[in-house]
Amino acid sequence: MKTAITPTREQNFPEWYQQVIKHADLAESSPVRGCMVIKPWGYALWQNLQRQLDIKIEATGHENIYLPLFIPLSHMEKEAKHVEGFAKECAVVTHHRLEEMPDGHLKPAGELDEPLVIRPTSEAIIGEMFSKWVQSYRDLPILMNQWANIVRWEMRTRLFLRTTEFLWQEGHTAHACAQEAQEESLKMLEVYRWLAEEILAIPVIKGEKTKSETFPGADNTYTIEAMMQDGKALQAGTSHFLGQNFAKTFEIKYLDKDNKAHFAWTTSWGVSTRLIGALIMTHSDDDGLIIPPRIAHTHIVILPTVHKGDAENILAYCEKLAATLRTLKYHDQPIKVKIDTSDETTGTKAWHWVKKGVPVRIEVGPREVENNAVFVGYRHKPYKERTAVDQETFIDALTLQLDEMQNSIFERAKTFQTKNTITVDSQEAFYDFFKKQTGFVVAYFVEDEKIEKQLKDDLKVTTRCMPFAYKEKTGRCIFTGREDGKLTVFAKAY
Amino acid sequence: MKTAITPTREQNFPEWYQQVIKHADLAESSPVRGCMVIKPWGYALWQNLQRQLDIKIEATGHENIYLPLFIPLSHMEKEAKHVEGFAKECAVVTHHRLEEMPDGHLKPAGELDEPLVIRPTSEAIIGEMFSKWVQSYRDLPILMNQWANIVRWEMRTRLFLRTTEFLWQEGHTAHACAQEAQEESLKMLEVYRWLAEEILAIPVIKGEKTKSETFPGADNTYTIEAMMQDGKALQAGTSHFLGQNFAKTFEIKYLDKDNKAHFAWTTSWGVSTRLIGALIMTHSDDDGLIIPPRIAHTHIVILPTVHKGDAENILAYCEKLAATLRTLKYHDQPIKVKIDTSDETTGTKAWHWVKKGVPVRIEVGPREVENNAVFVGYRHKPYKERTAVDQETFIDALTLQLDEMQNSIFERAKTFQTKNTITVDSQEAFYDFFKKQTGFVVAYFVEDEKIEKQLKDDLKVTTRCMPFAYKEKTGRCIFTGREDGKLTVFAKAY
Repeated sequence: MKTAITPTREQNFPEWYQQVIKHADLAESSPVRGCMVIKPWGYALWQNLQRQLDIKIEATGHENIYLPLFIPLSHMEKEAKHVEGFAKECAVVTHHRLEEMPDGHLKPAGELDEPLVIRPTSEAIIGEMFSKWVQSYRDLPILMNQWANIVRWEMRTRLFLRTTEFLWQEGHTAHACAQEAQEESLKMLEVYRWLAEEILAIPVIKGEKTKSETFPGADNTYTIEAMMQDGKALQAGTSHFLGQNFAKTFEIKYLDKDNKAHFAWTTSWGVSTRLIGALIMTHSDDDGLIIPPRIAHTHIVILPTVHKGDAENILAYCEKLAATLRTLKYHDQPIKVKIDTSDETTGTKAWHWVKKGVPVRIEVGPREVENNAVFVGYRHKPYKERTAVDQETFIDALTLQLDEMQNSIFERAKTFQTKNTITVDSQEAFYDFFKKQTGFVVAYFVEDEKIEKQLKDDLKVTTRCMPFAYKEKTGRCIFTGREDGKLTVFAKAY
Repeated sequence: MKTAITPTREQNFPEWYQQVIKHADLAESSPVRGCMVIKPWGYALWQNLQRQLDIKIEATGHENIYLPLFIPLSHMEKEAKHVEGFAKECAVVTHHRLEEMPDGHLKPAGELDEPLVIRPTSEAIIGEMFSKWVQSYRDLPILMNQWANIVRWEMRTRLFLRTTEFLWQEGHTAHACAQEAQEESLKMLEVYRWLAEEILAIPVIKGEKTKSETFPGADNTYTIEAMMQDGKALQAGTSHFLGQNFAKTFEIKYLDKDNKAHFAWTTSWGVSTRLIGALIMTHSDDDGLIIPPRIAHTHIVILPTVHKGDAENILAYCEKLAATLRTLKYHDQPIKVKIDTSDETTGTKAWHWVKKGVPVRIEVGPREVENNAVFVGYRHKPYKERTAVDQETFIDALTLQLDEMQNSIFERAKTFQTKNTITVDSQEAFYDFFKKQTGFVVAYFVEDEKIEKQLKDDLKVTTRCMPFAYKEKTGRCIFTGREDGKLTVFAKAY
């Protein structure tokens, strides 16, 4: 069978991924090494995600701020001294001027007394600010968030998944007690689950990272883990309980009611443009992108099939239909509709929008006008399954249909995840599985950095998380035989 | 009379500005030279501005994209070669790693083959992308916008007005013909006028810059100019018709219907966090910030005056009132209400919110509960003019009251601008005015870079614009006596 995307997922998954992005026109590489240009169709996904997550972040009591792009080197040193595994692949600004040379070329000039690092994350700068803002227990909790660009020097980059510059949201909070900070980090993980599952239709497993996978400087890292269609895991969002580590590094102290000074307890949590990569690899098929309705910028595209002399009638019919649809709302947002009046054939236009993943396509020709009908195709169903529907019926059922579509896309991904997850009770079965295939393996495990390193070396497999759902269960560790193993998810990962 | 802000505007305007920002808790300096931390109360203003402007930018046919933070040095050279007056105060990245030295300090390592400049604006990178994306007349127009952070190395910085890093929006468009590009740049200037006048209540003068004040590389720069309360001008937004200059530099060419290659015509336009500075300096008084309702994040604050045993009743009354108010909308946005339950006196709380500029304050004590009333103060009126109003009457009239307040704030600024604008017909009167005071001077002028330089040297005065409103008028130039002078606005400026 001919597919719109070549190669197919089965033939070459990484190349299929690049081709889906290209045909949907989501993003492209830029002249700057490792940086991408996010194009309108891709940026609309991010902006829609941002809008919906931002409402939740505000509703859970957080306020947005903006912190500087730069971090002085001395601040990084403070953090580096305290944080093992501190990331050092950073872009460093050393000059503040360009000078024109006699040959017309420019060269950096005006060397800075102290180099500035472009934020790889903002803990160092927020720590400094918190230490100023927090004096008394009355100042706590501080609940803040920022939307920003981040730079981490990457040697091998892939659009959305791993780029030198990316966009993200980073929450930073400080609390008077450990329990409250713990609850905060879990609350935000639940917000991320909501975003992934209910908006992006990506099923995730909520759990805790093993020590070796915990964020440097955190006491606990909580994660949502998704499965891509190649069976690999993708960490879709993390939330960190930082204990008093950062508070001690940056002297975030408050006077309590007892008039004694205590260190605060802090958290941080973030999701990034990586989620767009997860969205693509979870839902798209061999015909291109599939956008779940709740994250779609454009819900419906109308394709007029214009014949001979009836162009005017047909276009008027389309305009009227679009106007009616635009009065409807879907989850509090207006339904967005495009009419494609380009002079291609209807088939060419339809495939154009299939590849771009628009949830609903409506073809309108003389027959539809005559019968007051629409000829409808839903992106998550096979292309052939288009049907003629009475216009009124279609409009009445639309938001329900979109919800059904959203659920059906989610359920399909969930079924895929379930089918590609196995439980094993021996090291042998574990190695057998990963030597032959990908997917999630669940097994009892007593966490142990040496074993985790061995698995990485042997199989490129890492622990993804210890799912909250299995928290109470203990059993025999498949590697050591110890009886206090916890159920843990293992996988190859992005 | 005692004022909440010391010094007053009259005593020391620049220091008053800093104190308004401090008492409203809008932003503060960061440990990074020239960079600010935008705090929640300040960021909410920017986010609200962004939300409303973004809707207009989309409604006028533009799509959002995201371009890389970095520009390779060689691209800057391309631009520098063609653009006179090209800005060279840029942050330059020369290394991509931090290395730990034996003494624990970090130093930059991994020198880049080609230094990267942090975008001082994105013409260079968008030029490169446009040249790829534009092939045929069918690809035009391209109408794009991005929200981004920008870095220009500044020696003297002031919060919001001039910072090394700032946030902005930059539109970039390419067109097949000059007229369409001209119309585009004027259309976006009108969007900026709408934003300034109707949302921020800042009266502005629309006009064209003289050649010496035109953006390097542009054929024409259009501007909106506002007057601050110290009589100085602030350029609040600009829109550039770039002609074919950038198209030639970056080879943005298209094949027309005649199958011949032509250079495209481009525009760019932007507003930045500087507008928050303009907002502060236009409306605030000696008691602090005044926020026009249409840009307010919080419209109303309720201050319960809790006496002895009736705390419960009063709080319940406030909660119910807040719930009712939150069901209302103001220009399509929900009315936002805060209840201040801190244990300060009502007077202290009231002054706290006066300084933060919340449009409406409602005090609720036993008397209000008894009479089903509210005791209301509006921020733009003197503090003493608070009045008791029946609750129902207050609620019914609220959105009208807010609109009236918005208009009244705008009219007050407009009156100030008018009062501080004079027309002069001689060079002597011109010099007399600026030696003694500030404000806008309107005079006939035949533009001339030498004279403009002289005025800058003698008086620190620049041409602000040639207003569209006076386009048709010509008269005798006050400096040269030539008869083809155009009415031009002159002022000292930020």
